[in-house]
Amino acid sequence: MRVLGIDPGLATIGLGVVDSASPSDIRAVEWLVLRTKPGRPLADRLREIHADFSEYLAECKPDLAVIERQFFAKNETTAMDVSHARGCLLLALAQHDIPHLEPTPLQLKSAVTGDGKASKAQIQDMMALMLRLETKPTPDDAADALALAVYGALRANDPATALVLP
Amino acid sequence: MRVLGIDPGLATIGLGVVDSASPSDIRAVEWLVLRTKPGRPLADRLREIHADFSEYLAECKPDLAVIERQFFAKNETTAMDVSHARGCLLLALAQHDIPHLEPTPLQLKSAVTGDGKASKAQIQDMMALMLRLETKPTPDDAADALALAVYGALRANDPATALVLP
Repeated sequence: MRVLGIDPGLATIGLGVVDSASPSDIRAVEWLVLRTKPGRPLADRLREIHADFSEYLAECKPDLAVIERQFFAKNETTAMDVSHARGCLLLALAQHDIPHLEPTPLQLKSAVTGDGKASKAQIQDMMALMLRLETKPTPDDAADALALAVYGALRANDPATALVLP
Repeated sequence: MRVLGIDPGLATIGLGVVDSASPSDIRAVEWLVLRTKPGRPLADRLREIHADFSEYLAECKPDLAVIERQFFAKNETTAMDVSHARGCLLLALAQHDIPHLEPTPLQLKSAVTGDGKASKAQIQDMMALMLRLETKPTPDDAADALALAVYGALRANDPATALVLP
């Protein structure tokens, strides 16, 4: 199965894709970021995000998506911007009938590193190790997205998980 | 010109429409609410909001939209839900190439009642008066949306306003 991890944002959206046959057989397909330009009106940036992400979904054809659950940042304006973008990403997933999981940052870090307080560097190290990559995945948003995809592959392949996919 | 006012929300979205030839000639066309069911998954509700609102835009054909700027509520979960929905509403406006204004609640209340701290009841009274309605517009979300539409008609017709419409 193919799992797409999504690290939501307004300026930068991290995307990471893995293919997985079992919890011990998870292979990285690709990782990348979508970006929008800071100077443009919010509605135009949302249109760009929705169009680019929809196009990506049509090409990538994931069986499952994993999008990080959002917590409030100290900067409320930034948090609202992310929520606006996250709404458009969830919309595109629903429009493409792609089921999704929404782990919290704690759930994600616990599942992929065993440490709920893991740093970004630890996550990158673990991704390189688990996915047998020659170099650490970068930038941070793409590495986080790859970790989200691995989280989905572990959850989907775990018989103890009551994850029902269509 | 036709102006659409939008009071954003996840469970209830207020819509109000006015036609206006000048600041002294503003007529109410209609006011209504779109609703989504609380029990359903967030992504499904966003898809429903985007589909219903896009359909409404195609029928209503507004020249200008006015969508309230959001401030953080005490309940952060509610605020995030509203931001997710508001993102999908802004997306639909951009997809239909409809220009929009985003007044703060203070700007809205000041412009339509002369009192930045006006209550919902005062706004309803003023709408009934300005638009020569026989009864006060209800529910609150629709009355707020009508006030937003009036705000847009006043702004668009004010020669002092540097409002550039396509």
